[in-house]
Amino acid sequence: MYGTNSYIKRLICPRCDKKYSHETEAHLCECGSPLLVEYDIARAKSELKRPDIEARKPDLWRYMELLPVLSEENIVSLGEGFTPLLSMCRAGEKIGLGALYVKDEGVIPTGTFKARGAAVGVSKAKEFGARMLVMPTNGNAGAAWALYGARAGISVTIVMPEDAPYITRVECAAAGAELYLARGLISDCGRIVERAISKYGWYNASTLKEPYRIEGKKTMGYEIVEQLGWSLPDVILYPTGGGVGIIGIYKALLELRELGWVSGALPRLVAVQAEGCSPIVKAFNEKKAESEFYENSRTVAFGINVPKALGDFLVLDAIYSTGGCAVSVSDEEILSSQSELGRLEGLFVCPEGAALYAAARNLRAKGWIGKDDFVVLLNTGAGVKYSDTIAPSSRYLAPDAGL
Amino acid sequence: MYGTNSYIKRLICPRCDKKYSHETEAHLCECGSPLLVEYDIARAKSELKRPDIEARKPDLWRYMELLPVLSEENIVSLGEGFTPLLSMCRAGEKIGLGALYVKDEGVIPTGTFKARGAAVGVSKAKEFGARMLVMPTNGNAGAAWALYGARAGISVTIVMPEDAPYITRVECAAAGAELYLARGLISDCGRIVERAISKYGWYNASTLKEPYRIEGKKTMGYEIVEQLGWSLPDVILYPTGGGVGIIGIYKALLELRELGWVSGALPRLVAVQAEGCSPIVKAFNEKKAESEFYENSRTVAFGINVPKALGDFLVLDAIYSTGGCAVSVSDEEILSSQSELGRLEGLFVCPEGAALYAAARNLRAKGWIGKDDFVVLLNTGAGVKYSDTIAPSSRYLAPDAGL
Repeated sequence: MYGTNSYIKRLICPRCDKKYSHETEAHLCECGSPLLVEYDIARAKSELKRPDIEARKPDLWRYMELLPVLSEENIVSLGEGFTPLLSMCRAGEKIGLGALYVKDEGVIPTGTFKARGAAVGVSKAKEFGARMLVMPTNGNAGAAWALYGARAGISVTIVMPEDAPYITRVECAAAGAELYLARGLISDCGRIVERAISKYGWYNASTLKEPYRIEGKKTMGYEIVEQLGWSLPDVILYPTGGGVGIIGIYKALLELRELGWVSGALPRLVAVQAEGCSPIVKAFNEKKAESEFYENSRTVAFGINVPKALGDFLVLDAIYSTGGCAVSVSDEEILSSQSELGRLEGLFVCPEGAALYAAARNLRAKGWIGKDDFVVLLNTGAGVKYSDTIAPSSRYLAPDAGL
Repeated sequence: MYGTNSYIKRLICPRCDKKYSHETEAHLCECGSPLLVEYDIARAKSELKRPDIEARKPDLWRYMELLPVLSEENIVSLGEGFTPLLSMCRAGEKIGLGALYVKDEGVIPTGTFKARGAAVGVSKAKEFGARMLVMPTNGNAGAAWALYGARAGISVTIVMPEDAPYITRVECAAAGAELYLARGLISDCGRIVERAISKYGWYNASTLKEPYRIEGKKTMGYEIVEQLGWSLPDVILYPTGGGVGIIGIYKALLELRELGWVSGALPRLVAVQAEGCSPIVKAFNEKKAESEFYENSRTVAFGINVPKALGDFLVLDAIYSTGGCAVSVSDEEILSSQSELGRLEGLFVCPEGAALYAAARNLRAKGWIGKDDFVVLLNTGAGVKYSDTIAPSSRYLAPDAGL
């Protein structure tokens, strides 16, 4: 049994500062807040070197020492991470940006960035000896946890809204997970899951109700920086539903700065939401520290249809602390952006990712993003998981026809 | 403008040995055979070192010197390659294998291994100044070439059978390609394409009718070997339709041997087909050098529904030369294998990839594969592109329900 040499130190509540041991299973703080993982960065700084990491396999476990898993045998992996960071010259030119990049999380097991949270979260659940994981989901996270659960040999129960993307049901079925479809929103699914946990004592894998999913997601931040030669972009745009990714990326940036591996101003973090579900944008505009439940939410970008995120205050803190902002775009802008990125760049991104291009365009037009800014869009998933956002037009031919 | 330092030397016909320059656009040999790319391996051997490659970005362009593109500015990339090579302990144990691995080509842009052929093929078409690419396809190759074409700024026309997976139509539409659906098989599409080329003079991107797609696919062979620490597995199983992948992997193995980077017996290559479309298996069983058109072909693994492959003689040569074999499996075996890999390993593979697990099981049971053999399955694509091969069973819940 090999150790990972993880520098994990403890869990800490970002709201009330209460500390918890990382050696026993933990979920929320007593105060109701999500918990964050703290590492012994001082020790890491003296022992861990960037070239050690650069020489490793191109997956997120290259950052093993800065992840929470203690024993290598508990690592549950499908080869996730180190996704491409691609330039988008034509799309950049079109919206007046000289350096527009996309981090393409479509190129990852299960086809979305949810694989990162699932890989680390399931690994840690395995380390704690969990037998049954349960979670509410808008689809993709459930699919990822179901498949990583299967890889770990752990049973999984998933509750998703009946409107969630069909393909994610298929993935849950492929993994052999127990699947329930709720006639409601993800918030309803969350309450169903809470009742089940009270009744059966299952391992709560709900967003931010276990502290390790963030650790998986933060590796997107590490990778962007490593792929840019350990330098920082000026702006990172992120499609924000539950917000774990933006919380994770911000955490990664702080850790990298503490390690001394980057310096200078952190990238301005931009939370992008859909007009039909924009609680974070509303809170940002009102300069509030938390969001309110967004009634009657609705958007084609189903992954960001989250009316109230448990970690909203962490998302807002990441935005305020980096001089970022929160903006929303319409479903029409999302769909036309998806189409434009396909035609200009050959990138078939998910609607959530497409929202970022629309937001970048708007922020550039307003001057909030400057023409020389180095901008990274975090595309959270592959377009092929959403077969209904683009309607193919095609002509039928007889076998002996000509074109 | 940077050169790639490609060691490309010329094109050569594997059937009649005629040589062609690589400096002008070429498609088939005068004799009708596909052409292969030849490199100056002797020079590569003295100049190119494995550590140079190991230090590069994890995509297929790390093998740049052994690829045909001359100028870096012509490289059209979406970050493809260096896909995970994963152990499958539970599945291996179930079928009596101690070392069963899968090379997962679902984790690649466009979700299938077709991305490799498209990346290199489109790059080379760009280098030749092509304006319009045209090709017949069973879906996934067309989707890949459409998207890489868009990335290159080259127009693309795709002709696919109306029965091809729906998602590939969506991908073509996302790329802005011209799409035609033929009421027939891929062989009918091929004839439609040939007529269009005669009429319009478009760039022929049909399977093996341009020599560069193989070069993209061969990188799967390089990667398997590099990922195994420059050592060879005993057996590689490959789902065989057009057969470009198995031809490419065999070519890669020969090149690596000539480079002196591997030694010993080459892996036995196994072509796996569906019972409903098994022309290569029939030819192999009859010890023939070529296959015959397979009438009324039909299988759930649509990607390998190819009744007569242009490169059949190259596939059969690869099998015979390595002591491999060709076997078929039933659609029932394919579907139950897909389900089993999901549940045991958390891998949602495509039906074509699932066929390999069924084949490995059968070959192990017959003793053709030994219990200590190191076996690699080449899963050609992500299961999410085929949403109709697994039917999710799920229960509906009211928002206030319990589990």
